[in-house]
Amino acid sequence: MGESSALQSILYGRGALRLLDQRKLPLEEVYIDVKDSADGWNAIRDMVVRGAPAIAIAAALSLAVEVNDHDFTGTPVEAASFVSKKLEYLVSSRPTAVNLSDAATKLQNLVSRTAETAKDAKSIFQVFIEAAEAMLVDDVADNKAIGSHGAEFLQRQLGSSRNISVLTHCNTGSLATAGYGTALGVIRALHSGGVLEKAFCTETRPFNQGSRLTAFELVHDKIPATLIADSAAAALMNNGQVQAVIVGADRIAANGDTANKIGTYNLSISAKHHGMQFYVAAPVTSIDLSLPSGKQIVIEERSPKELLNSEGGLGKQVAASGISVWNPAFDVTPANLITAIITEKGVITKSDPNGSFDIKGFIECAK
Amino acid sequence: MGESSALQSILYGRGALRLLDQRKLPLEEVYIDVKDSADGWNAIRDMVVRGAPAIAIAAALSLAVEVNDHDFTGTPVEAASFVSKKLEYLVSSRPTAVNLSDAATKLQNLVSRTAETAKDAKSIFQVFIEAAEAMLVDDVADNKAIGSHGAEFLQRQLGSSRNISVLTHCNTGSLATAGYGTALGVIRALHSGGVLEKAFCTETRPFNQGSRLTAFELVHDKIPATLIADSAAAALMNNGQVQAVIVGADRIAANGDTANKIGTYNLSISAKHHGMQFYVAAPVTSIDLSLPSGKQIVIEERSPKELLNSEGGLGKQVAASGISVWNPAFDVTPANLITAIITEKGVITKSDPNGSFDIKGFIECAK
Repeated sequence: MGESSALQSILYGRGALRLLDQRKLPLEEVYIDVKDSADGWNAIRDMVVRGAPAIAIAAALSLAVEVNDHDFTGTPVEAASFVSKKLEYLVSSRPTAVNLSDAATKLQNLVSRTAETAKDAKSIFQVFIEAAEAMLVDDVADNKAIGSHGAEFLQRQLGSSRNISVLTHCNTGSLATAGYGTALGVIRALHSGGVLEKAFCTETRPFNQGSRLTAFELVHDKIPATLIADSAAAALMNNGQVQAVIVGADRIAANGDTANKIGTYNLSISAKHHGMQFYVAAPVTSIDLSLPSGKQIVIEERSPKELLNSEGGLGKQVAASGISVWNPAFDVTPANLITAIITEKGVITKSDPNGSFDIKGFIECAK
Repeated sequence: MGESSALQSILYGRGALRLLDQRKLPLEEVYIDVKDSADGWNAIRDMVVRGAPAIAIAAALSLAVEVNDHDFTGTPVEAASFVSKKLEYLVSSRPTAVNLSDAATKLQNLVSRTAETAKDAKSIFQVFIEAAEAMLVDDVADNKAIGSHGAEFLQRQLGSSRNISVLTHCNTGSLATAGYGTALGVIRALHSGGVLEKAFCTETRPFNQGSRLTAFELVHDKIPATLIADSAAAALMNNGQVQAVIVGADRIAANGDTANKIGTYNLSISAKHHGMQFYVAAPVTSIDLSLPSGKQIVIEERSPKELLNSEGGLGKQVAASGISVWNPAFDVTPANLITAIITEKGVITKSDPNGSFDIKGFIECAK
């Protein structure tokens, strides 16, 4: 799953899927058996698995396990409809994750096309299983391409004469993808290229994906790294300890506006104030060209308990009883605060530094 | 201790001091007996008591309890020297808190002046005890003045035609002062004046003073309030849910640069980006005219454990083992990001909105 790490969050062999329970990290490495799409739905909703690409792959593979050896007596069209409905159900587990809904649409189109000529239901399931498995393999290859494009671009922009320190937010690594990672993939590539001075990661409140997961990956890979409170980011930038910010994306609109973990927008404002580059690293599957701008992105609100109790809601009560909570899972960073978007197909830049991106144009050229 | 609240964090009667253990809030209201300056030093260092004004008062009162009925056989000069050394020791418990070191200096001057004419050691102690007790009484009066100046100024600046929602950070209320509070005192005054729409408070990582203490006070006083993650502040501002930010201060330099809880600088940058007013509310004792600017303020770093474990370091391990931590207790917000500084003597404004403050001039005029 990438030479940098023996850690695998998605363990898959045909007919069997196990997911690393990321809620138990970093103290315990416990895998959960996922036998069908219902198990997959729960694992995604309960954040056993998280990170936009990993969610899409885990969802597809949970259904792949369900339909393997499935005793289905219907027609090919009925089999395709069965798969389609299950995919719709899986999408409802995490409505903001565009990778998941995009993947579902592609898989739905695939099975319905196949149903037109297929001889039996089994062959529909076979095509679906192979497509889900390809997602797992392709994701690692895409992340490595993001890492190498990003490392090259950052060195060019920030100057290759000195080592680079970067700040990242949330978790975008092996634990958020099939392996290697997006923003963390760029950090891995900088490190393996010998030009990374240090990676800083935020706690990423309220669910602590930074202190639990990103810190775990950075220590695991022996990458020089330091953890800070989310609110210490501006002081860190002002001290000159960091030269750039690099984050992942949950969803990118056609103009480059980017929905990502709450706090990303905060970091982009601080980066601009300090004249610092701010990069988004994500596969093109995170881009949703149907959204003209970030205004159309629906922001999921999560349970108040994540702030009221310790350990992101799983531990003891911390906050005062009776206080109201506003707990948005994401915020939207406008394109004008983003320097460049790093994808597996190359780096998307813009002509006006304070303007937005022409992502549609980039994707057409990249074809 | 202020009509708004029966809650008292400092319970004092001559010869007896009890401090509310704020580490146990909001779940338990436990008071700790403080019998001497050693108990006071530990209570401050271990954050039983916190908040710049409260620290200074608790320190002085801990020594007042120690010297009450003290079996001291030396001369008045020796008694004054005894008090002076104990005060120096108390200052070392929290070196960034200027209120504490200022109060210590004033009390040292007082006892050494008194020693010149005093007839015995006992009268030195008596003068010291009365001065410490006056600090407690004066602080509540000062906070009420801050609250009334601030509420009036905010209404004038933000428009009195609509109700005002403000965001605050850390805890600056009855639990940080002898009562009523500084930034939270302004919020209390807005609320009792009927013009507060809502107060938002941050968690204030890593020690959760916002979710534990400020939320506790706001619920206690029935002030409409909502808790957010520190990193959700920019999204909140962008949504138009809040019109201003108001924070306290640990130390204010002569130009208005303000050291306050880590994350304050973050908030000031976001406020500026959203064209929002950013206010500091603090007693003039927080001002240190010997510092030309914030560059001279030494920033205390606190234990990595506050980020590595839940509940601000008191709970279970959360972060990955082996990760380095940078945990500054404070950051410095430059004067150019501060709209005005609200004190008990009035509101300090500046002629150039992007410039700094002439605090020395203000204080001279206020005399």
